[in-house]
Amino acid sequence: MKKIVECVPNFSEGRDLAKVEHIVSAFRGKADVKLLDYSSDRDHNRMVVTAVGEPQTLQAAVVEAVGIAVQEIDLTRHHGEHPRMGAADVIPFIPLHDMTLDEADALAKSTGKLLADNYDLPVYLYEKSASADHRSNLAEVRKGEFEGLPAKMQLPEWQPDFGPAHRHPTAGAAIVGARMPLIAFNVNLNTADLTIAKAIAKKIRFSDGGLPCVKAKGFFLNATNQAQVSMNLTDYTQTGIYQVVEAIRAEANSYGVAIANCELIGLMPLQAMTDTFAQYLGLANFGEKQVLKL
Amino acid sequence: MKKIVECVPNFSEGRDLAKVEHIVSAFRGKADVKLLDYSSDRDHNRMVVTAVGEPQTLQAAVVEAVGIAVQEIDLTRHHGEHPRMGAADVIPFIPLHDMTLDEADALAKSTGKLLADNYDLPVYLYEKSASADHRSNLAEVRKGEFEGLPAKMQLPEWQPDFGPAHRHPTAGAAIVGARMPLIAFNVNLNTADLTIAKAIAKKIRFSDGGLPCVKAKGFFLNATNQAQVSMNLTDYTQTGIYQVVEAIRAEANSYGVAIANCELIGLMPLQAMTDTFAQYLGLANFGEKQVLKL
Repeated sequence: MKKIVECVPNFSEGRDLAKVEHIVSAFRGKADVKLLDYSSDRDHNRMVVTAVGEPQTLQAAVVEAVGIAVQEIDLTRHHGEHPRMGAADVIPFIPLHDMTLDEADALAKSTGKLLADNYDLPVYLYEKSASADHRSNLAEVRKGEFEGLPAKMQLPEWQPDFGPAHRHPTAGAAIVGARMPLIAFNVNLNTADLTIAKAIAKKIRFSDGGLPCVKAKGFFLNATNQAQVSMNLTDYTQTGIYQVVEAIRAEANSYGVAIANCELIGLMPLQAMTDTFAQYLGLANFGEKQVLKL
Repeated sequence: MKKIVECVPNFSEGRDLAKVEHIVSAFRGKADVKLLDYSSDRDHNRMVVTAVGEPQTLQAAVVEAVGIAVQEIDLTRHHGEHPRMGAADVIPFIPLHDMTLDEADALAKSTGKLLADNYDLPVYLYEKSASADHRSNLAEVRKGEFEGLPAKMQLPEWQPDFGPAHRHPTAGAAIVGARMPLIAFNVNLNTADLTIAKAIAKKIRFSDGGLPCVKAKGFFLNATNQAQVSMNLTDYTQTGIYQVVEAIRAEANSYGVAIANCELIGLMPLQAMTDTFAQYLGLANFGEKQVLKL
């Protein structure tokens, strides 16, 4: 199987569906690029595209889509509930298959340079691709939004990584970077006792000394009268689904509680499933090549 | 994801590598067809191709390959250890994704008709596609081989399903049919006691009243000093990997023995992994669409 990268670009258009379709068209009809989803929101006035593909061809599709967005979206007239800094606002690259985070980082940087060169657009690198610690967090990079960019770009610590040192008049700036795929995974307990879910979440999350790359919270589900441990796994190669489920099972057991069921929210890389499958079975000498798929 | 079918055609040529490559070339460079493997054997004088693809395009590749085999292989001069009845000897179609066994059966039948029409080749249908019970088993259909075909084809119960009622002078006859994917799966126990592996195999295999579509035997592994339950799962939608592993775990437990590890031999459809993953986690509302792959 080829290298596969995912890109989830966010565009600042969620009302004019002709423009939405025009931007999305860059991801259609291309060999080795697959448009998995796109959804626009009127209130947020924003659209999120999910596409996967071979790195070079997906990059070309992203650059084409950003070109359309730069031409068609005018942020001086843009209003919406979601914070935004650019017409093409955030462009994360996520390694999915046979690809390291470093390779996705290189792809993000070359994409940023292309966007700057082609469209005279200032580009900030974030997450894994950030050029300094204070530029890693998306909220920090975007703070001030489109309207605050001219002032922000006066500051030495907020010079763009690529492109001109001034705001694009209508398209603002783009934020590009690489990150690991995020897995949103919930474990529902056979108890209505929220305090147990909260205690388990506290025990397993990294911020309280638990498992690496695990964020967790306890919730109560009215519909099913169940307590839930809701998680984000920010790097499944550090802590995978098997590890969190079995850690929760062991913790729950100490309260005399069992796992009722689990839920995967959204998408998961094939590798995260393959790892879990192999771990549950104690599979020896197992390779992903043994899984038949086209 | 598209419908995906696997085809594992066996050709009666394992010595002339130019001919082998010529036959295999039919599976190369075609959109929606992927050549996974081919291996030829001098002693058997035979080659096995493994290819997956979208049903119609894979069928076209198979028909093309058989055409090359019919032209280049002369069974009147063919000698090898493996029994064979035709230049293109056996052509099984196996449903892999979003496809039923009935759909694979229809594909096998239409392929058989094309081979008969295009190459004036008698074609026997076998396995799921067999036109009568006595024609289901490959060994029965092939009995007599190329040399015995003229006499066999005199018998009313061995008239071909498609094509002429006489042997192709150099290419014999082809045997085409649909079957479920076979999963070869071993469970190794943390004991050297072969009698335990044999007792567990007897308990779980269908022929002794165990799980449907499970064949099982006990073996002793010299290299690791382990007893092994070795299985063929002939229809993972009836009994999947999760069910056999947990059945073996429970049986082993009653002997005070545990599972040391498991092995998958060869290939497995993605769906067999997805099912097992979902069952171990008790996943609610899980769909294969949530697995990111190209």
